[in-house]
Amino acid sequence: MALANVVLVGDAWLWEDGQKVAGHPVVTQRVANFAEVRGRSNVHVPAFLTVDTVRPDQVTKAQTLAACGVSVLTVLDMCMDATLAGHIDAITFAPLNKHAMKMGGLRHEDELHHFAEHLGVTSYFCEFNTLNGLWTSRISSHVPLKDVPQYLDQQRIIDASTLIYRSLQRNGNATPRVAVAGFNPHNGDGGTCGREEIDIIQPAVAKLAEMGIPVLGPFPADTIFLRARDGELDAIVTMYHDQGQIAIKLMGFSQGVTVQGGLPIPITTPAHGTAFDIAGQGRANVDATANAFRIACRMGAARLQETSGLQAA
Amino acid sequence: MALANVVLVGDAWLWEDGQKVAGHPVVTQRVANFAEVRGRSNVHVPAFLTVDTVRPDQVTKAQTLAACGVSVLTVLDMCMDATLAGHIDAITFAPLNKHAMKMGGLRHEDELHHFAEHLGVTSYFCEFNTLNGLWTSRISSHVPLKDVPQYLDQQRIIDASTLIYRSLQRNGNATPRVAVAGFNPHNGDGGTCGREEIDIIQPAVAKLAEMGIPVLGPFPADTIFLRARDGELDAIVTMYHDQGQIAIKLMGFSQGVTVQGGLPIPITTPAHGTAFDIAGQGRANVDATANAFRIACRMGAARLQETSGLQAA
Repeated sequence: MALANVVLVGDAWLWEDGQKVAGHPVVTQRVANFAEVRGRSNVHVPAFLTVDTVRPDQVTKAQTLAACGVSVLTVLDMCMDATLAGHIDAITFAPLNKHAMKMGGLRHEDELHHFAEHLGVTSYFCEFNTLNGLWTSRISSHVPLKDVPQYLDQQRIIDASTLIYRSLQRNGNATPRVAVAGFNPHNGDGGTCGREEIDIIQPAVAKLAEMGIPVLGPFPADTIFLRARDGELDAIVTMYHDQGQIAIKLMGFSQGVTVQGGLPIPITTPAHGTAFDIAGQGRANVDATANAFRIACRMGAARLQETSGLQAA
Repeated sequence: MALANVVLVGDAWLWEDGQKVAGHPVVTQRVANFAEVRGRSNVHVPAFLTVDTVRPDQVTKAQTLAACGVSVLTVLDMCMDATLAGHIDAITFAPLNKHAMKMGGLRHEDELHHFAEHLGVTSYFCEFNTLNGLWTSRISSHVPLKDVPQYLDQQRIIDASTLIYRSLQRNGNATPRVAVAGFNPHNGDGGTCGREEIDIIQPAVAKLAEMGIPVLGPFPADTIFLRARDGELDAIVTMYHDQGQIAIKLMGFSQGVTVQGGLPIPITTPAHGTAFDIAGQGRANVDATANAFRIACRMGAARLQETSGLQAA
């Protein structure tokens, strides 16, 4: 059985170029629009919806160009619209270059905020990074490190912890072990090395306990991932991007997946970047992309089931 | 042959308690003062210089108390004075609690700044963390994360890179491969996610090249340690405490050693903390302490040789 009825979306010349680089031709079935996808009979052949978002003469491999950013934004928006219209159930996208997207018109700090706006999300959302059963999320993401303290407040910690706790429950873990990381070196060392643990994080953990969400920590950032590696934790809420990413990439760079949490539709992507330094060499490791696809399939199927249940009720 | 002529310094009752906890009695030779150490005949038995810095009724295990901080400061100061007086050649100390030391009178952000003041150091100094041949240092250390941007300037990056480069050369690596980490998520993503890489770090790397110190980077913080693990780098200069410590502890928590760089005498300590959660249980892993002792022996011997050379010249 196929994991999913897949539709590829992109420019035909790019897809052909990618197959040449990989040395791996793929048979596809052209479709004229998203509406044709769900009714296909042979789901063992991926559907291919071609678009015209960028010309070959506008692209140089491994270069950050506005035209490439426009192309990425156009395709992502089409996929979101198709999902909202009920034609598809989940999205996996390849690594993208945020700088090119900003040059191409992205008005947000990252793609997740763009997704949220496009999908009309007003409740709390954030990225999850998953790796071999460990889920992580963060209070702040693609913002300059000097601005991170502004993002650290009790409500964000409560929202992020609740979202990851509930998401793990939805994935079949009735009593997830979620912990929050400290912010300062040595967890603030009793307040002598920063007070965010005492003034913000500990009160948030106390409020979560009152809400019936048992969250552990804060634990020092430089040892919390050792606890996870030792099997003590199912999820970690980190305070900023690199606090989690340094650990996650060391624990399994080629395997990690980013899940966009808190959106009405599942969107996943490999956690690694565009790797411009090996672009066009046919050396990319596709493990994380395959993992991202599998998670999207699982979450998309769960959503489809929930939606059917709601319709039946 | 013994690695060194060792003198233990501490309160007698603490040493006895430690032996009981570890279940490992150690034969020592009492000395009355540091001046007696160098002339000892049997260096296979450690010397023991007892002091009276703290009483049993002032101490509760795994508690952060001012009396304990006073004790630690007193012993460290004695050892530094003995080294300055020429009685000993290097110091290794066990993990200490900075908060207790601040309660006990430490006026600096950490012990390294205390060492530097006590030893009259006015030139650049910083901690090195070493792990299986990889050396790391950082531009800022035990300061609140919100204050870290203030510490990020070209001169500190130049000084830290030069110190670690020269130190590796002194340790026998003629052409060390030193790299600097970026500061912001995704290395600032071309300036859209912070400008420290463009405004501060890249110019510092350019100046280092002019000075004949070839330093690589800046590389994104969440992948630079993968390069090191792959054997591409001998040293990494990080921008803040947890950027390096998260990685180092994941790469070998129980093995890491901190070397106090830029001081006139070698001072080393295990990189891990006091582990109050397992205090008194006899479960501590002493690998890092043993490694710290070995590095102190090697560096102390090199210093002794240099000093003899200078005296002979």
